[in-house]
Amino acid sequence: MRICFIGDSYVTGTGDETCQGWVGRLSAMERQAGHDITPYNLGVRGQTSRDIALRWHAETRPRLEGRHDGGVVLSFGVNDCTSTAHGQSRVPHDEAIATTQRIVQQARQSWPVLMIGPPPVGRPCPDGRTQALSHAMAGICAQLSVPFLPVWEPLLAHPTWCTEIARGDGAHPAGGGYAALARIIHDWPAWRKWMGPLP
Amino acid sequence: MRICFIGDSYVTGTGDETCQGWVGRLSAMERQAGHDITPYNLGVRGQTSRDIALRWHAETRPRLEGRHDGGVVLSFGVNDCTSTAHGQSRVPHDEAIATTQRIVQQARQSWPVLMIGPPPVGRPCPDGRTQALSHAMAGICAQLSVPFLPVWEPLLAHPTWCTEIARGDGAHPAGGGYAALARIIHDWPAWRKWMGPLP
Repeated sequence: MRICFIGDSYVTGTGDETCQGWVGRLSAMERQAGHDITPYNLGVRGQTSRDIALRWHAETRPRLEGRHDGGVVLSFGVNDCTSTAHGQSRVPHDEAIATTQRIVQQARQSWPVLMIGPPPVGRPCPDGRTQALSHAMAGICAQLSVPFLPVWEPLLAHPTWCTEIARGDGAHPAGGGYAALARIIHDWPAWRKWMGPLP
Repeated sequence: MRICFIGDSYVTGTGDETCQGWVGRLSAMERQAGHDITPYNLGVRGQTSRDIALRWHAETRPRLEGRHDGGVVLSFGVNDCTSTAHGQSRVPHDEAIATTQRIVQQARQSWPVLMIGPPPVGRPCPDGRTQALSHAMAGICAQLSVPFLPVWEPLLAHPTWCTEIARGDGAHPAGGGYAALARIIHDWPAWRKWMGPLP
């Protein structure tokens, strides 16, 4: 499969000393298990749902158009929830929901779609907002029959994710955190349906 | 620096069992040496200069616009030189040259630019055409004062590159070939000027 991974700095792998991030680590696991995967990492640092709405289709088209083996994985939301100088969300909750709904709805008209929820950083702000957005995204995806993986709770409980964030730039983990996230997605039944069963 | 690596399947890293390719391996070497680098891998399999001309700017803008630490690395050309069913180049030599010139000229108006020449695959076709295109690209870049790294000769002479291609899909090496290419670029003085001196 050729898969466009569309999102923010967590998709890019900011902070990972190997520059692989979860997309690269997950793809390497699959390729080494004999699954044919071409990952296109379309994460951009700092982007909100608003920014992603403007570019996801133009960037996906030249990579997947006319192919029968394409797929789209969406993952964003933390930047929507971080605070402006006035203490408000960069993107208001209702707008983030409506934009996410539009992106998911349009993407699934052309390609199989999966969505990975936004992760925690280990501080009340933006985590409170992010958790609420993750729940709302799950609802949107359920309505549209798009598999959604909430990673907020498992990453908050994971011994590595928030510890590495606190030791790092305060927003991104290092390689250990990304490896943990890659493993969670690797074992997700909806992802396994794309790649084939575990050996 | 935030760097857009724009090109074809060699930029994507097709065939690399780690899914890193030379972009990921080079970026990991730099990050582990303490250099701050955010790589955006914008390689797309099968693309010619013609395809890249249509998308490079739209994809670079949301990643680098308004930033003072942006850079663009271009690398393509092999797909221009492969044969159509009628035995001709997918993109005629003169068109490939003119398109490359236009891309390089436009890119350097906004960002620092480096260009990496197209690699050999170890067979007369497309290698004869690719070598000629690489030479012409070197000329264009010299005219426009853009550093150009010819990798055709060093990769042809390298013990790993063409051997892995022959053992693989006939066009792409595995991780050893990409590691060799990453090392060649890592030691290139024009690249070191971007990243900082060797430790």
